[in-house]
Amino acid sequence: MPTPAFQDLYPDGWSHCYGCGRLNGQGYQIKSYWDGEETVCRVTPGEHHIAIPGFVYGGYIASVIDCHSTGSAAAAAHKANGGDPATGPYPRFVTGTLKVEYLAPTPLGVSLELRSQILEVKGRKVTVATVLTAEGKACARGEAVLLQVRGTPGQGD
Amino acid sequence: MPTPAFQDLYPDGWSHCYGCGRLNGQGYQIKSYWDGEETVCRVTPGEHHIAIPGFVYGGYIASVIDCHSTGSAAAAAHKANGGDPATGPYPRFVTGTLKVEYLAPTPLGVSLELRSQILEVKGRKVTVATVLTAEGKACARGEAVLLQVRGTPGQGD
Repeated sequence: MPTPAFQDLYPDGWSHCYGCGRLNGQGYQIKSYWDGEETVCRVTPGEHHIAIPGFVYGGYIASVIDCHSTGSAAAAAHKANGGDPATGPYPRFVTGTLKVEYLAPTPLGVSLELRSQILEVKGRKVTVATVLTAEGKACARGEAVLLQVRGTPGQGD
Repeated sequence: MPTPAFQDLYPDGWSHCYGCGRLNGQGYQIKSYWDGEETVCRVTPGEHHIAIPGFVYGGYIASVIDCHSTGSAAAAAHKANGGDPATGPYPRFVTGTLKVEYLAPTPLGVSLELRSQILEVKGRKVTVATVLTAEGKACARGEAVLLQVRGTPGQGD
């Protein structure tokens, strides 16, 4: 059986997000996975997610970095709590701060890879650093501070 | 005649952006205007731009702050160059860095206001600070550094 994505292990009531919710039929439905100690997500923007001809608009890039970061935070917190990575439910995080540096124009029409490192898991706060690459070239770098929503799995309150 | 929005004064070839391009039929088509020394944009997210039930997803917020900031930078640069605010073509900016602080959950189903201050216009770099409010409550704060695309109007090269 294939490994479920982080987003497949969110509780149903927390799976509506436009960026990452598996129950949002109009959204991006991004999927994130562990790759060793890093987390990875691959996305292909639509042709309409254009900035200027040939390139992806910055809001799409910010959105997928944001949602991949919340997923990565959930997976990291689940693991830190001793949870089996392949079994949910995962906790749910929201974004406290998001910073994106646009390093180079991101080409449209190719698959993009987001690869993240978990910088810190501290209480209900997780910090995630991400690099977005297109055809091997780093196009954007993100850093997000995510906060676990009280009452979601693993929080214990 | 009503005042045109900043985005209505972008050259046609630079009006495809998913967030702000008037020629992108699938995008947000945001509209930004001067209000004294500040710039203002009002948007109403769709029901599918959900994070968790009742609230807007963070990527939408980052996207509209980003695109309103690029528009505000264009308007500020045009004005700094002695241009008539109501007459284009405006120059075109891309994002260097974007930082968003999520201060409170942003309610879905109401109009949101983005109000920005131009912090600095320096050469081809403009810095813009934005507060996003819903029903008078500040829900997010953004700061963006925008870079004018060489070869777009007003750049002179």
